[in-house]
Amino acid sequence: MKKKATLLVKNIGQLVTMTGPFPRIGKKQLNDLGLVEGGGIAVAGNEILAVGESEVVEGKAPLSDSCKVIDAKGAVVTPGLIDPHTHPVFSMTREKEFEMRIAGKSYMEIAQTGGGIRASVRDLRSAPRKQLMEKTKKRLDRMLRYGVTTIEAKSGYGLSTDAELKQLEVIRDLNQTHSIDLVPTFLGAHEIPDEYRNQRNEYIDIIINEMLPAVIKDNLAEFSDIFTEEGVYDIEESRKIQQAARDAGLGLKFHADELKSVGGAELAAEMGAISADHLVYISDAGISALAKSGTVAVLLPGTTFSLSGKQYAPARIMIEEGVTIALSTDCNPGSSFSESLPFMISLAALEMKMTAAEALSAVTVNAACAINRGGKIGQLQPEMPADFVIWDMADYRELPYHYAVNLVTRVIKSGQVVVGD
Amino acid sequence: MKKKATLLVKNIGQLVTMTGPFPRIGKKQLNDLGLVEGGGIAVAGNEILAVGESEVVEGKAPLSDSCKVIDAKGAVVTPGLIDPHTHPVFSMTREKEFEMRIAGKSYMEIAQTGGGIRASVRDLRSAPRKQLMEKTKKRLDRMLRYGVTTIEAKSGYGLSTDAELKQLEVIRDLNQTHSIDLVPTFLGAHEIPDEYRNQRNEYIDIIINEMLPAVIKDNLAEFSDIFTEEGVYDIEESRKIQQAARDAGLGLKFHADELKSVGGAELAAEMGAISADHLVYISDAGISALAKSGTVAVLLPGTTFSLSGKQYAPARIMIEEGVTIALSTDCNPGSSFSESLPFMISLAALEMKMTAAEALSAVTVNAACAINRGGKIGQLQPEMPADFVIWDMADYRELPYHYAVNLVTRVIKSGQVVVGD
Repeated sequence: MKKKATLLVKNIGQLVTMTGPFPRIGKKQLNDLGLVEGGGIAVAGNEILAVGESEVVEGKAPLSDSCKVIDAKGAVVTPGLIDPHTHPVFSMTREKEFEMRIAGKSYMEIAQTGGGIRASVRDLRSAPRKQLMEKTKKRLDRMLRYGVTTIEAKSGYGLSTDAELKQLEVIRDLNQTHSIDLVPTFLGAHEIPDEYRNQRNEYIDIIINEMLPAVIKDNLAEFSDIFTEEGVYDIEESRKIQQAARDAGLGLKFHADELKSVGGAELAAEMGAISADHLVYISDAGISALAKSGTVAVLLPGTTFSLSGKQYAPARIMIEEGVTIALSTDCNPGSSFSESLPFMISLAALEMKMTAAEALSAVTVNAACAINRGGKIGQLQPEMPADFVIWDMADYRELPYHYAVNLVTRVIKSGQVVVGD
Repeated sequence: MKKKATLLVKNIGQLVTMTGPFPRIGKKQLNDLGLVEGGGIAVAGNEILAVGESEVVEGKAPLSDSCKVIDAKGAVVTPGLIDPHTHPVFSMTREKEFEMRIAGKSYMEIAQTGGGIRASVRDLRSAPRKQLMEKTKKRLDRMLRYGVTTIEAKSGYGLSTDAELKQLEVIRDLNQTHSIDLVPTFLGAHEIPDEYRNQRNEYIDIIINEMLPAVIKDNLAEFSDIFTEEGVYDIEESRKIQQAARDAGLGLKFHADELKSVGGAELAAEMGAISADHLVYISDAGISALAKSGTVAVLLPGTTFSLSGKQYAPARIMIEEGVTIALSTDCNPGSSFSESLPFMISLAALEMKMTAAEALSAVTVNAACAINRGGKIGQLQPEMPADFVIWDMADYRELPYHYAVNLVTRVIKSGQVVVGD
């Protein structure tokens, strides 16, 4: 029996389909949005039935009796945005610390007064699960309102087996109940917890021998991430932990070269990681290595911005060298508290000189590749999930230009209108 | 007869009243928010009836039968924000030009291809009034959703008597129909129009002898503004035009020292202007002059941000030297397309090292002074207009920290809930 449309969006001014190769590599591919002027989308249930020029779409799909019809009135439609690097599960916000930073206090001084990531660890360990659920849900609601339909979500504020599992379980439970899809990443190696500061090898043993098996047993993560940085986990420790994670069946991600060039990108490439993230201080060798391995570079300009930094990841050089680029908010309570992926498109333009098309590719088709969903989401094609956004604009180039405001009119997730009417 | 409350907001976690001196000058005053922990507001009609500690407020005000009661559930409440420098009346957006800038094109190259302010002038002149109304209304709607209840709005894309009047009439008409209050500024001296490029004195004559009388006759502006900058209006031209405006009864504003230090701030102080705006390249003498004259420095960090600039106005030095500081979006289609004044609070913190309290003072009590409404709006006191915002946060310091998203829960304008329920 031929499927009938349950939702029809017509009169789309610019339909950004992103059909074509994935990942998008190089300037030419990144700037190819698969743009259809005067388009439509027909949805059947949670899937796309037809997408393309209005006449073609409307001709293809018989409408079900209860079919909802949306007139986009010439607006832009894009795939639902994908945020491939977030730390959304926390209770306590850290605005006081932000103000101390503005007043000129250093990270070390803030840490000495009990701030920084250790504050979030104390918070996460003591926070009731229900409170974590509620607060995280509010963040997901906000992400959704900004056009995001899938995120990667990390643990990493627990730093004990129980607390890491608690965080991953919150992610699992929210994935079941919330419109946003959450892809879980285990980040037990986010820091060395205070109680193991002088016995770091013991903590690494706990990660490998206690946490990883527990995470695997309950199927709580797809990826393992690590903060590879001077003063956190060095290259050898990172290799050891990530090898164990890979052996346990997890894909690999790295917080790499955020504050200094320590070879994090090279290690990510060597180990066949799916992504290397941050990369503000990536070396030339690191860029070549990522290009060669196909590891996605997830760039987080909000973190530089929110730390009043001057240096952003060298996006243009990476694009030139054939590295796959994605963008993310890094949403977290310390260095980048924002749920707005569209704002990262503005920052990508202003601070990293990416075009609107490149940035859009980086938060859709390429962001999908950064969470092992390449060709499955982040593009608008028949049989793919009907995840897309109707924007209050006539030209997609308004996205970076019209900054720091919400230009989303409607969000459609799995064929349902979840934002707007 | 004792007035009865028509609206009661109770259980406010942090009530930012801003009572006290206006303008706020110096670090100490700027950081004094008149903060009440555990507060309430009673409103009668469009005015504040009582404000302060919950018990006091609830004891003071008998409730009308139809009184609406809002439980703020521990949230932050601030005065409605005031945006004292905007160019919101235009039809055409200029996203293509933005992308050319990102690609490295200079302002001159863009102007040569027909871009820049001249593009907006062509657009304004040809745009039907109804279209201008509709598009501007959408921008006002968005400002309101971001917590703004009063704006200053400029002409300046007409540059002919008819077109300047058209723009000011749109502002007048929207002021009558929209929840946001619009305070109109005549900016015929925004540029030299193409047709007078080689006869600039003739255009200046038109401003003085045609435009100003027409604006005054129909009572279309409270202020006269001018772009005092190298290549636009020099100091002598600016003095001449603004003298005529002052003689005609208008208050004075200046676009000063945005791109270069040309003595704009000094001139604004000399002429007793109510505000000098931009001031990225203000001289030491200019800072002293503004401090002495009491002219408000309206800082526009969004413009630097949106032009990928590196230099921001020296806010800390100005605060140190006793200059009155306000903040604004500069909302316009060229150099800063954003309706979000809260985002300017983030930029003020990150790029100008202002505290959350200083920035809040700068968008409320001090912004009121920048539009000659000091002591009338921007503070929460009995008999002042009931313009205030309920925010989705428990600590006002979340405002700069939680960036580029909309944290407004409800906006109350003239005692009516105009955003939220």
